[in-house]
Amino acid sequence: PEAETLDIETIAEGVRSGSRLYLGKAITLLESSNPGHKQNGQQLLNQLLPFTGNSIRIGITGVPGAGKSTFIETFGEMLTGLGHRVAVLAIDPSSSLTGGSILGDKTRMEQLARNPRAFIRPSPTAGTLGGVHKKTRETMLLCEAAGYDVILVETVGVGQSETLVRGMVDMFLLLVLTGAGDELQGMKKGILELADAIVVHKADGDNARLAKKTVAEYKQMLHFLQPASEGWTTRPLAASSLENSGIPDVWEMVQEFETTVKSSGYWKKRRQKQTQDWFRSMITDELHSRFFDDPERRQLVKSLEKQVLDDRLTVAQAIARLFE
Amino acid sequence: PEAETLDIETIAEGVRSGSRLYLGKAITLLESSNPGHKQNGQQLLNQLLPFTGNSIRIGITGVPGAGKSTFIETFGEMLTGLGHRVAVLAIDPSSSLTGGSILGDKTRMEQLARNPRAFIRPSPTAGTLGGVHKKTRETMLLCEAAGYDVILVETVGVGQSETLVRGMVDMFLLLVLTGAGDELQGMKKGILELADAIVVHKADGDNARLAKKTVAEYKQMLHFLQPASEGWTTRPLAASSLENSGIPDVWEMVQEFETTVKSSGYWKKRRQKQTQDWFRSMITDELHSRFFDDPERRQLVKSLEKQVLDDRLTVAQAIARLFE
Repeated sequence: PEAETLDIETIAEGVRSGSRLYLGKAITLLESSNPGHKQNGQQLLNQLLPFTGNSIRIGITGVPGAGKSTFIETFGEMLTGLGHRVAVLAIDPSSSLTGGSILGDKTRMEQLARNPRAFIRPSPTAGTLGGVHKKTRETMLLCEAAGYDVILVETVGVGQSETLVRGMVDMFLLLVLTGAGDELQGMKKGILELADAIVVHKADGDNARLAKKTVAEYKQMLHFLQPASEGWTTRPLAASSLENSGIPDVWEMVQEFETTVKSSGYWKKRRQKQTQDWFRSMITDELHSRFFDDPERRQLVKSLEKQVLDDRLTVAQAIARLFE
Repeated sequence: PEAETLDIETIAEGVRSGSRLYLGKAITLLESSNPGHKQNGQQLLNQLLPFTGNSIRIGITGVPGAGKSTFIETFGEMLTGLGHRVAVLAIDPSSSLTGGSILGDKTRMEQLARNPRAFIRPSPTAGTLGGVHKKTRETMLLCEAAGYDVILVETVGVGQSETLVRGMVDMFLLLVLTGAGDELQGMKKGILELADAIVVHKADGDNARLAKKTVAEYKQMLHFLQPASEGWTTRPLAASSLENSGIPDVWEMVQEFETTVKSSGYWKKRRQKQTQDWFRSMITDELHSRFFDDPERRQLVKSLEKQVLDDRLTVAQAIARLFE
């Protein structure tokens, strides 16, 4: 049956029972642009709120070619093997421009996609940056209510996606390749300082020795940077999905992170702060979208901006005209 | 005569003539909270806009104890000796909370304050972050119209001040002390990546040799980071205000930076982007202050936020109630 013909109670029960089918329906309801669906979706989410929060939320990003999908697949398979239930979400603010959804690509993570203890959801493909953020956060909550205890949020695309993801996860992993120096030259600004762990991936074959050297280089470099999480020292380690080596170490470290950061109280503090920031950024988003909803006003802003850039108007004068 | 009794033409002429007295009056007019003064201030600034932009705007920050004031005084004295006119502004978002103004402290930069080719303005002491930003940017423009060709914007206080200053200057200097490793542990996140140059200060006496080592350490570390300005490699160098050594090298480097970044076109591109960002952030500020102007609404936001943090309401539901 379609989500719209089902009552909220039924869907909520379905989600709670761990049904992937119902979870999918619930997400679709929340993502719908139909006002009625949207409202139902929010009621549903509200009912499920008491059952959310019981997962570890891990953000994963990587330099191009670092093998993110392969890592997530290997890591996810290992975790389901250990009895965990794993949800993989993707955030891709650039897809709102192109309409594309990289994770939607069926050729990725084939094995994990067939795993009954895993749930893979492609990136929402439409809307503003705030909208993508909102959808991913809400999907994460639904997955938790459905009993997924490890949520992997993958960054896809460019620009602000790492900062967005950092703002919704407990821990952030950065996947890199061997040869730290050269590679970092092309790494986005500030990304190292978002990471709680750096996984030197593809540490296999001839690369294995080089990976050890790279780990040492990162260790040295990290000494100079402030850690991303209070009370936790960002750690580099080598892993190979191909040879399935180092992957259990990553999980061991994740658990150590969880214990450390939970016992210091920073875990809870960060989650509260993230929810607060989310609420506040949604207020700003709403104020913006209401203000810029009027095409005439958008035109006026454009024209005022041009006058400011041409030194014909002060910024304060432009603001005064815009709000007069 | 008081600013309010003078007509705009007279003040504009006074500013253009390089009179520090008139410049001070013009700034006071722009900073005034009286609506009439404000409007006159903006008209004045508008008249002066064609004469702005002809300076190099340099942001200066430093780790605690790095000797920022001493450096600015020595650097400023050298520049006025070379025929430049130097304005020193300070930005201190924290002062809007405490009401204090560190640069207002008369004991700082005594010598430079008496120098007829220099102009020192304390940080605006009231208002929002956006307000402090606005006042400093407008003061900078007035100083340029008054013929100051080197503007030093000093960060005072904590928090976002470096990012704010980076958003209004052409070049950003970071003052540090010897012993890079230990010191960086306490350095704010991402600050290295804002800097175009790192001045290892107090490189005198026994420190001189250590400073050389620190410069080498920074050079190595900077290799791993993306430069702050397109086409310019962030450079560490040692200087001492006490022994007046290395200060001319700083200025030489500033000039090299100017030539390099101007010829690549990035100088102009950055300034346009900064003005655009300023305008856009002022729109957001205005939307916020209008929305939160109503005490009842502020109360509602507070109560909704609490419900969201207690998992009693979804973020989207809270937003819906706020805007219904």
